[in-house]
Amino acid sequence: MARIVKKISQKAGLPPGSLVYVGDKAEKKFKATLVVYNQETYTEEKLTSLEECLILPEARKITWLDVNGLQDVRNLEKLGECFSLHPLVVEDILNTNQRPKLEDYGDYLYLVLKMISHQEKAQEISSDQLSLIVGPHFVISLHENDEAIFDTIRERIKSKGKIRRAGPDYLAYSLMDLVVDHYFVILEDLGETIEEMEEELVSRPDPQTVHQIHRLKRVMIILRRAVWPLREVLSQLERQESPLIQEGTSLYIKDVYDHIIQVIDTIETFRDMLSGMLDVYLSSVSNRLNEVMKVLTIIATIFIPLTFIAGIYGMNFKYMPELDWRWGYFVVLGFMGAVFLGMLLFFRKKKWIGGP
Amino acid sequence: MARIVKKISQKAGLPPGSLVYVGDKAEKKFKATLVVYNQETYTEEKLTSLEECLILPEARKITWLDVNGLQDVRNLEKLGECFSLHPLVVEDILNTNQRPKLEDYGDYLYLVLKMISHQEKAQEISSDQLSLIVGPHFVISLHENDEAIFDTIRERIKSKGKIRRAGPDYLAYSLMDLVVDHYFVILEDLGETIEEMEEELVSRPDPQTVHQIHRLKRVMIILRRAVWPLREVLSQLERQESPLIQEGTSLYIKDVYDHIIQVIDTIETFRDMLSGMLDVYLSSVSNRLNEVMKVLTIIATIFIPLTFIAGIYGMNFKYMPELDWRWGYFVVLGFMGAVFLGMLLFFRKKKWIGGP
Amino acid sequence: MARIVKKISQKAGLPPGSLVYVGDKAEKKFKATLVVYNQETYTEEKLTSLEECLILPEARKITWLDVNGLQDVRNLEKLGECFSLHPLVVEDILNTNQRPKLEDYGDYLYLVLKMISHQEKAQEISSDQLSLIVGPHFVISLHENDEAIFDTIRERIKSKGKIRRAGPDYLAYSLMDLVVDHYFVILEDLGETIEEMEEELVSRPDPQTVHQIHRLKRVMIILRRAVWPLREVLSQLERQESPLIQEGTSLYIKDVYDHIIQVIDTIETFRDMLSGMLDVYLSSVSNRLNEVMKVLTIIATIFIPLTFIAGIYGMNFKYMPELDWRWGYFVVLGFMGAVFLGMLLFFRKKKWIGGP
Amino acid sequence: MARIVKKISQKAGLPPGSLVYVGDKAEKKFKATLVVYNQETYTEEKLTSLEECLILPEARKITWLDVNGLQDVRNLEKLGECFSLHPLVVEDILNTNQRPKLEDYGDYLYLVLKMISHQEKAQEISSDQLSLIVGPHFVISLHENDEAIFDTIRERIKSKGKIRRAGPDYLAYSLMDLVVDHYFVILEDLGETIEEMEEELVSRPDPQTVHQIHRLKRVMIILRRAVWPLREVLSQLERQESPLIQEGTSLYIKDVYDHIIQVIDTIETFRDMLSGMLDVYLSSVSNRLNEVMKVLTIIATIFIPLTFIAGIYGMNFKYMPELDWRWGYFVVLGFMGAVFLGMLLFFRKKKWIGGP
Amino acid sequence: MARIVKKISQKAGLPPGSLVYVGDKAEKKFKATLVVYNQETYTEEKLTSLEECLILPEARKITWLDVNGLQDVRNLEKLGECFSLHPLVVEDILNTNQRPKLEDYGDYLYLVLKMISHQEKAQEISSDQLSLIVGPHFVISLHENDEAIFDTIRERIKSKGKIRRAGPDYLAYSLMDLVVDHYFVILEDLGETIEEMEEELVSRPDPQTVHQIHRLKRVMIILRRAVWPLREVLSQLERQESPLIQEGTSLYIKDVYDHIIQVIDTIETFRDMLSGMLDVYLSSVSNRLNEVMKVLTIIATIFIPLTFIAGIYGMNFKYMPELDWRWGYFVVLGFMGAVFLGMLLFFRKKKWIGGP
Repeated sequence: MARIVKKISQKAGLPPGSLVYVGDKAEKKFKATLVVYNQETYTEEKLTSLEECLILPEARKITWLDVNGLQDVRNLEKLGECFSLHPLVVEDILNTNQRPKLEDYGDYLYLVLKMISHQEKAQEISSDQLSLIVGPHFVISLHENDEAIFDTIRERIKSKGKIRRAGPDYLAYSLMDLVVDHYFVILEDLGETIEEMEEELVSRPDPQTVHQIHRLKRVMIILRRAVWPLREVLSQLERQESPLIQEGTSLYIKDVYDHIIQVIDTIETFRDMLSGMLDVYLSSVSNRLNEVMKVLTIIATIFIPLTFIAGIYGMNFKYMPELDWRWGYFVVLGFMGAVFLGMLLFFRKKKWIGGP
Repeated sequence: MARIVKKISQKAGLPPGSLVYVGDKAEKKFKATLVVYNQETYTEEKLTSLEECLILPEARKITWLDVNGLQDVRNLEKLGECFSLHPLVVEDILNTNQRPKLEDYGDYLYLVLKMISHQEKAQEISSDQLSLIVGPHFVISLHENDEAIFDTIRERIKSKGKIRRAGPDYLAYSLMDLVVDHYFVILEDLGETIEEMEEELVSRPDPQTVHQIHRLKRVMIILRRAVWPLREVLSQLERQESPLIQEGTSLYIKDVYDHIIQVIDTIETFRDMLSGMLDVYLSSVSNRLNEVMKVLTIIATIFIPLTFIAGIYGMNFKYMPELDWRWGYFVVLGFMGAVFLGMLLFFRKKKWIGGP
Repeated sequence: MARIVKKISQKAGLPPGSLVYVGDKAEKKFKATLVVYNQETYTEEKLTSLEECLILPEARKITWLDVNGLQDVRNLEKLGECFSLHPLVVEDILNTNQRPKLEDYGDYLYLVLKMISHQEKAQEISSDQLSLIVGPHFVISLHENDEAIFDTIRERIKSKGKIRRAGPDYLAYSLMDLVVDHYFVILEDLGETIEEMEEELVSRPDPQTVHQIHRLKRVMIILRRAVWPLREVLSQLERQESPLIQEGTSLYIKDVYDHIIQVIDTIETFRDMLSGMLDVYLSSVSNRLNEVMKVLTIIATIFIPLTFIAGIYGMNFKYMPELDWRWGYFVVLGFMGAVFLGMLLFFRKKKWIGGP
Repeated sequence: MARIVKKISQKAGLPPGSLVYVGDKAEKKFKATLVVYNQETYTEEKLTSLEECLILPEARKITWLDVNGLQDVRNLEKLGECFSLHPLVVEDILNTNQRPKLEDYGDYLYLVLKMISHQEKAQEISSDQLSLIVGPHFVISLHENDEAIFDTIRERIKSKGKIRRAGPDYLAYSLMDLVVDHYFVILEDLGETIEEMEEELVSRPDPQTVHQIHRLKRVMIILRRAVWPLREVLSQLERQESPLIQEGTSLYIKDVYDHIIQVIDTIETFRDMLSGMLDVYLSSVSNRLNEVMKVLTIIATIFIPLTFIAGIYGMNFKYMPELDWRWGYFVVLGFMGAVFLGMLLFFRKKKWIGGP
Repeated sequence: MARIVKKISQKAGLPPGSLVYVGDKAEKKFKATLVVYNQETYTEEKLTSLEECLILPEARKITWLDVNGLQDVRNLEKLGECFSLHPLVVEDILNTNQRPKLEDYGDYLYLVLKMISHQEKAQEISSDQLSLIVGPHFVISLHENDEAIFDTIRERIKSKGKIRRAGPDYLAYSLMDLVVDHYFVILEDLGETIEEMEEELVSRPDPQTVHQIHRLKRVMIILRRAVWPLREVLSQLERQESPLIQEGTSLYIKDVYDHIIQVIDTIETFRDMLSGMLDVYLSSVSNRLNEVMKVLTIIATIFIPLTFIAGIYGMNFKYMPELDWRWGYFVVLGFMGAVFLGMLLFFRKKKWIGGP
């Protein structure tokens, strides 16, 4: 399960702008893909370091630098210098425990999103941070995930789609749209799991169910933390009067915003359903306890008095007249039978056992 | 039960405006009814494809195109071209998993509503998407439901009602009003089911009740998802300053808005009632457990000591003076009777059994 | 119990303005009381129909038409014509399932309120709709309740109170104030019921209590539906810039508004108290179960081992040396007594039974 | 326990401004203390009626009339006349069931506060209404509490504190500050009670605890009703642009406002803590039930099979070979011992009993 | 555990500005560290009293007075005089029970924060008040904590960091940042505790768990009280138009604000998780009760009827034909075996015991 709180405490007391990597993927190396394109040209290049500011964005082209692996603090420091980013921005990129947010630094916008990936079997999800910096002629995306996730976007650029004719804001939109679309994939899987559990709950409830519901509830908490603030981010972005966002793009951002609302809606629905399932489970546990107790009570209530009667005639008193009666044994057996039937009728009247 | 999340994930990574049908009614064919009218004339025509843009709206007439069946992506693409709709609108029409919403594209308004239908017995409801496009001289309605649902509207147009004299905004209002009126039909059925369950709950609670409450709660969740955002949509529509909505119509839209508030109110009331019923049910389960345990405890507490006494005199010791006493048996029987009565008094004092 | 949802569905698909009576008092006849007054004169007249528009309001007098019984659709249609009311207003008057609301039609204000009446014994309340139309020289009140409820107002007009000198807005205020004052009567009765139940709950909890709490909770739901929207209505009315509300009256409306806030406050308090009572009841059920189980466990735990010992010496083996011992019986009795006392000490240590 | 709803219903149907005393302290007589002061002079006088308007405020002095006992409607009517108060104000003073509120009547401000007093032992609180009327040269305070509560204020005036140099707004602030400070005294006592209960809950839970928690929850409900609206009142008062509030005073009002926020905060914290305590209590009840059931189950499960074995050899069949065996008795005893030990191991494995 | 309400009641009735120390650290002595610096110079001095106003801030230097220990009311009074602070400010500094707040007194800003410290083992936290006064050339910090906590800041000033070049607003920011960073340390520890408890809960639930959950919930309540109002304070500070906050600093304040949002978010997440854990625990208690009851029921239901049969043939009637049968004993044994197996099959069918 993803940690709720990461090791941010090592930063306590340091001055602002101190570059400390706060994550748990210390092994990953720095990799970057540099794509430069405009309507006519397209070049792609793999980088392993950012030693010199060779990749300065050109005015008539769009430069997209996709950085994967944030452990190498020096490269990021360099990046900050080349693109003259505020020290707090570089600090935030390294602190992978941020909430989604949007900050307007005038010359560029800084966006934080959360990418969610999950292992279906283990019912666990993990959340990775995607930082986007959108400038007048460049987009920088920084993350720790698998480097291939943005390949479809690069394909779309190569194949001369609308993205080729539009500005860096549209490229940023495309990246965000991809991230949000992936939320739906996860919600679908969760939805299927929940619906399977619901059917199971009705047919054969199981103590394990509670732990499963609990685990899914926790997944919902993590999802909510990732998605909820995005709503505010996108709504800000849409209303943004920054010249970095062109008018035509805000319609597309509105579309992503609608998707986020839908995702939040679905998460809330799932939470409601999980709460409902817990209620159903707990009441079925109570019902089974009732059932068990009824069986015990019926058996005990019928046989304890009968055993008592048998006990009486098992006493060894010298003078017990009934013992010498010719039909004593059969009279007692008959009496026991009568008690037995009386008890059955009593329980049927109480509706504890079904009638014919 | 309607799926909470539809198969939207197949769209992940595609560029915006990609036309993919996201629904579960893949068998349904494209059908459309074209109605053109003004105060003097009325023509109705069935279409099975939209091959050419022959149906361009005329300035002095109102054109209403009612499309049923969204699987045929080509026809919808054509539709988008003829009426010059934004690609995102056509994409949204096909994505039948939208929340109700209103979008103003300047030349036309795009509205999404949810139509609810239900099978009373199965206590299940399904929700279908209705897209409305309201232009200066035309209304396009697109849905997957039974094509007959808007017949009453066509009748009202034919019979020269107010609708004949008013503009396309009033036609759109009439369609929305019909959809909202249908919510009341469903709420009435649900209300009756809930009230029956409530009476049943008091007279004879049943483990099945919890599952029924759970199912109804889920129905409420789906209803709420369909209705809640409509409130915002209608309130926006009323305040709308678009020239597409005439001033006289906004009074009618206010009326639909009031109905939606009433629907939401009722849904919340039902949710409260269902929660209350669950509480009542669970406490009645506890009470019955108490009852069962009392019966067991009374029987066991009375007869276990008596059986012990009988057991003592069933021992086979050689030297047990009482066994040889003349009245030993009857003394013991009398003692047992006294214990029996003492126990009864004890339980009556504890109010576990009623007094005379 | 009042139905939560009335038979509004019969209206589905009809054009707006269709006059359909939606209520459950189909037997009641149309009755109306016409009061015309100014500072000098006062006339009162009973009407049984509104066949002609004879009752046109006069400019220098105030006309108050109090209509009781809404089944006669024709009379209401006539009323609409005479006072030139919007068709939607007449439709809303007949639809007795409205939420409280205020609508400003320019020439007149349309107000919907809920009157609550209750039968104390049955712990049930019913809610009736009061429609008020406030024009420049007239007030029309329409309801289905007992016609006598507004007699006190008529008395106050007759007896030349402030109401005689003020305008129709003050008359409307007086009617609303009466309705709101009646809420307090109901809240007092409910408050007494709740406090009695609370005392009962502590002294002798009872399975019936849950059903009673449930019934009261439902009463609260209905009350809340009636009162909550009134807050908004009165706040709108106070801020209203309509010339129909004179400046001096808004102080009185503020007073009614304060009362409504107080009513809402009290309802919420009652809801909190009822929830608290349910918790107390459920925990007392658990406690009693604990009590019952302790009695059973003490008895069973003491006597089952003793019975086992007795059972051993009840066996018929030929060679059981103890049986032949002289003091065997008394030794065993003593051993049983020791076990008995040991058990008692064990239970006292566990604090299951009290000490001396 | 203070009634939640007072006998306000007797006012239903009366015209506004009808003076009806709505309280439960019908015995208390009218008493008033008149203090007139400015920086130089100070006079104090006890009054028992307000027969004539002799106490008109003087322009260069501050007149403070502190009225105790509201039953004498005539005196209050007189007061209203002398200070030309609006009839609704006098009505509200008598209606001691108001929510805290602030009303600006132009010439004077009308404030309603709640004074809380409590009996620690009984865990009950009662709430009394304090009405404040703040004019340009006078303050009138009206309440039903002990007349001595404002003595400290009078002492401060006598001793020539800041209060002597400031205006009537500062005097009103001092009275409010005293009332709010008293809330803290009550919160401290409640806090101590809650913390004692919490410790008790851990060491020895008790069925009485639930009733105590319930009683404290009710106290919280009453406190909240008294304090919550005060927040709005003070925030209004601070923003007030009335010339009756001098600029320097608003800093002090802000201070009272901060205290109220702190009181509300503490009340909410207490509510959270009480809810948590109920959870802890209920789970400890469940645990003890579990404990009880385990003891029963262990005893019954061990001895019932053993008793059965003894029962078998207690049967009187003629041909039971084991009975005649030489070591039969001892073999059976050994077998019983083995069953006994096996059961103990089974229970230890299930962790129902502790191991060595 | 920190007291929720401190002894503020001793202040009731005193005039505003009365200096009363409201805390529980009465032993601590007054200590102060005076740091005066600008870009060129740095001096540090320890003070034990503030007898004379020697430490007046200089216009071209920044004076930071860090006061530790608030019991000595005289020193604080002196401080108020020297820096001409409003009496309410000095009163608030001494009242260590404040909520975090920001007050703008024109010449200086007054800020209240809460510093949280905790003992990991005892799962308890305590909250101390930090008062900050930010003037044009000075910062005063007052607290009761360990005096060493701000040593890192002093180090950073000494080592000529950015803090040396910036104004007093940046120094205040640095102090706040340190306090907020410390929240993360505490959240991390709490997060670890919660995750350990969660694992324990699944592997071996324990009655102690509820008390631990309860204790953690209480910690969350205290944390929330400390952190929640800080959000408002920082948001106010960021929007502040006071000349005391320079434009460049507000970017840093925004950063602290983001951290606070993150802290609040995490607290809410922890609360959700703790609630979920309680649900899991309670349901596991129910499950174990079920388990226990099943064992009891299986054993009792199997052996009680068998014991009854044995009891029958233990009766001493003279005429019991079965007793004389040659194979009577073995027939009965066989019958008992059949009953035994039948019961086992019944329980396997009910899924109370596992099958092969």
